Amino acid sequence: MPKSVLTPQAEDFPRWYQDVVAKAELADNGPVRGTMVIRPYGYSIWERMQADMDRRIKEAGARNAYFPLFIPESYLTREAEHVEGFSPELAVVTHAGGKELEEPVIVRPTSETVIGEFMAKWTQSYRDLPLLLNQWANVVRWELRPRIFLRTSEFLWQEGHTAHATEEGARRYAKRIHEDVYAAFMRDLLAMPVVLGRKTARERFAGATNTLALEAMMRDGKALQMGTSHELGQNFARAFDISYLSEHGRQELCWTTSWGSSTRMIGGLIMCHGDDFGLRVPPRLAPVQALVMVVKAGEGVEAAARQVVSDLLARGVRAELDARVDTPFGRRAVDAELKGIPVRVEVGPRDLAEGAVTVVRRIAGGKTSVPLGGVADVVAGSLDDDHEALYAAALAHRDARTTTVATIDEAAEATRTGWALMPWASLGPEGEASLAETGVTVRCLTLPDGSVPQAEDDPDVIAVIGRAY
Amino acid sequence: MPKSVLTPQAEDFPRWYQDVVAKAELADNGPVRGTMVIRPYGYSIWERMQADMDRRIKEAGARNAYFPLFIPESYLTREAEHVEGFSPELAVVTHAGGKELEEPVIVRPTSETVIGEFMAKWTQSYRDLPLLLNQWANVVRWELRPRIFLRTSEFLWQEGHTAHATEEGARRYAKRIHEDVYAAFMRDLLAMPVVLGRKTARERFAGATNTLALEAMMRDGKALQMGTSHELGQNFARAFDISYLSEHGRQELCWTTSWGSSTRMIGGLIMCHGDDFGLRVPPRLAPVQALVMVVKAGEGVEAAARQVVSDLLARGVRAELDARVDTPFGRRAVDAELKGIPVRVEVGPRDLAEGAVTVVRRIAGGKTSVPLGGVADVVAGSLDDDHEALYAAALAHRDARTTTVATIDEAAEATRTGWALMPWASLGPEGEASLAETGVTVRCLTLPDGSVPQAEDDPDVIAVIGRAY
Ligand SMILES: [Zn+2]
Ligand SMILES: [Zn+2]
Repeated sequence: MPKSVLTPQAEDFPRWYQDVVAKAELADNGPVRGTMVIRPYGYSIWERMQADMDRRIKEAGARNAYFPLFIPESYLTREAEHVEGFSPELAVVTHAGGKELEEPVIVRPTSETVIGEFMAKWTQSYRDLPLLLNQWANVVRWELRPRIFLRTSEFLWQEGHTAHATEEGARRYAKRIHEDVYAAFMRDLLAMPVVLGRKTARERFAGATNTLALEAMMRDGKALQMGTSHELGQNFARAFDISYLSEHGRQELCWTTSWGSSTRMIGGLIMCHGDDFGLRVPPRLAPVQALVMVVKAGEGVEAAARQVVSDLLARGVRAELDARVDTPFGRRAVDAELKGIPVRVEVGPRDLAEGAVTVVRRIAGGKTSVPLGGVADVVAGSLDDDHEALYAAALAHRDARTTTVATIDEAAEATRTGWALMPWASLGPEGEASLAETGVTVRCLTLPDGSVPQAEDDPDVIAVIGRAY
Repeated sequence: MPKSVLTPQAEDFPRWYQDVVAKAELADNGPVRGTMVIRPYGYSIWERMQADMDRRIKEAGARNAYFPLFIPESYLTREAEHVEGFSPELAVVTHAGGKELEEPVIVRPTSETVIGEFMAKWTQSYRDLPLLLNQWANVVRWELRPRIFLRTSEFLWQEGHTAHATEEGARRYAKRIHEDVYAAFMRDLLAMPVVLGRKTARERFAGATNTLALEAMMRDGKALQMGTSHELGQNFARAFDISYLSEHGRQELCWTTSWGSSTRMIGGLIMCHGDDFGLRVPPRLAPVQALVMVVKAGEGVEAAARQVVSDLLARGVRAELDARVDTPFGRRAVDAELKGIPVRVEVGPRDLAEGAVTVVRRIAGGKTSVPLGGVADVVAGSLDDDHEALYAAALAHRDARTTTVATIDEAAEATRTGWALMPWASLGPEGEASLAETGVTVRCLTLPDGSVPQAEDDPDVIAVIGRAY
């Protein structure tokens, strides 16, 4: 393998992360502090995430809509006399149309309030339920310590909001999004093992009666929350008067849910699968699964490479040609490593003279000489294996860095390098509060078989404890 | 046909438009003046537009990226001492992070300036060219007289920006977007005839050396600009220092293009194809092509309707079941008309007893009894015809409302109800200026065979003159 151009993970993980983001051409800092430019390669990964997630959300019955970027100040701040009194995460538009606005306008930090208002209009009768809405949009939360993809002042996300006639209906739907949409997406597309659990009261979303979360371990042993799905009880419906006329002619309050996932997942992907040579993109997600490289110019070399691309495309592999022979081959190979393209097929005059090409695998590692006619089969097989291999490696890493503990001190110790598992009955809210003082949190509560507890006080409940991004 | 619930077009066209937008559940006004909520049905139309346009843009070689919502004030306003001095279309964030910003931030009215800055970074060598970028995003231009989809303070759009080594390369690409992407999209997906032409110097985009436009006629005889593609010469490259090192080792300025289309096209779609019963959605665009309706409950009726849906899906028709028998059938039928769903298949107990269903066509009009086994063929055939019929009707309407004229007075008269065609050599910039005083503009310059003139002074050039949205 070529020498890495990145800071090694073991030396300085945050620096390694920054290096990958820059050198794999994923993103760049925008001119306004805390904002990001998602570069074409990074955006092509996001587009594939979005398309797959969107399909799953639609299969769960939700429909997309679009709500405005601007929210009246009065929706978010009841008392502030001057804009300095607003929550620091809010960006406030005070001037537009060439003059000062009578009422300042907030750039949405979420569309919750506007969506709530319209859900109230749209749920008139039991026939309108369930109302299942989703939105893909940019949102703004001013960040003082920004970090690309993980914490940016502007990010892209989807937020779902649903209204149901019964508590049971809302509960089932929040669970469906948690498991059938988010967990399945992370496992099957991102090749990321996630722990499914519920949040403790301390970590729960304000206004939620239950927050379901998905937590993934990064290469440095820290946790990243990859998505959440909230049961909101009737709290949200009461605040926005989301009610309906029942079949029995009574006006009833709805039960609602909300759920979201964002460009943060790209950060999770990088930190879960990346290594000292760059990103490693799971093959089902990869915009380019196989890069067919002309090593150097020569009689029939480019034609052979084109033929390989055709064979791969015909086999359903997303293949792309790299015939930029005026750029040194080594630089192009390093670039493909950095970008984490799962397979490189190197086509050069010497190999070709023997009717062969070289297949280089980014994920499993290794180079093999493959006869021209067999390339498509070898590559397609590698991609299948690579998905499993990446998932298994991430799981093994998580297991190796996870310790079952009995005391708070042991938990504090274990979370220096990974996660601690401790019975929630032993830890409890007080132990949780004491760990929180050192930045260690209960990521979620789960059951020994990996399922989600119905309630906190089930005696089998295990707290997954760690430091988090 | 059921009685219309809309203001008739002939009575009050703007009112008709508002009625359709509201009653077909396309969109609603947002809480901040000038903003809009795109409702699920309206958004499903936009999503299909976006997916098809995106595919065509990618086929033309451009790659998507994402640039920040916020732009430093200094990028857009060099002199303004206070934010009141900014252009009235700009929305200005003055507070964020809980305090007043040192430098106000503009909510992007376009991403041109930021994209320009990054294009300058990314075009180092001739190997980086052409650089073909596109972005899908929301933009904000404060509107004092907003109108949903047509003029809103926030709208969704795509903006493309490309850099080329030669003038010829830039020109060819602007033309490719104009014809192979925009015109083909409008003709083949939206079933809208558009006139392709170049703008006069007066109507040209500031900074462009040539603006290519697509103009469509609405049902009231007015014009709507559906998209533009600009050649920017080296003006933009000079302003942002977008240059590259040539093969000969010289630093050269690039030649750039930009091009855009937006949610405005939804307004165009409504006003081009809509009638007194609502929207008519071209079948290739329609999210639901055939709505299979259970007329009323009855032995085996719903099962039969489900079977029809399956048959249609198997035939590649986007079909949906409407089994909401607790809502009056008449209301559901009116709703389907309003939404412009191309075909309704009505499944009722009486017809079913004779092994038949009723196929109702929204675009061609008419009801037919069709034997159960033949529904899929009849519907699929109707959809093919409907695309052509819609296109032909729009073209016939445009032709009927277009008058060839010889004088400015005749042009003024003709543009009360439609378009005037007049030799540009006779009209000239002075005639253009005089018409502009009464709100009549040269929409574009075109040639008798429908092609785009290379230059204004070609003696065959025809001015397409009209009132515009
Ligand atoms: Zn002021
Ligand atoms: Zn202030």
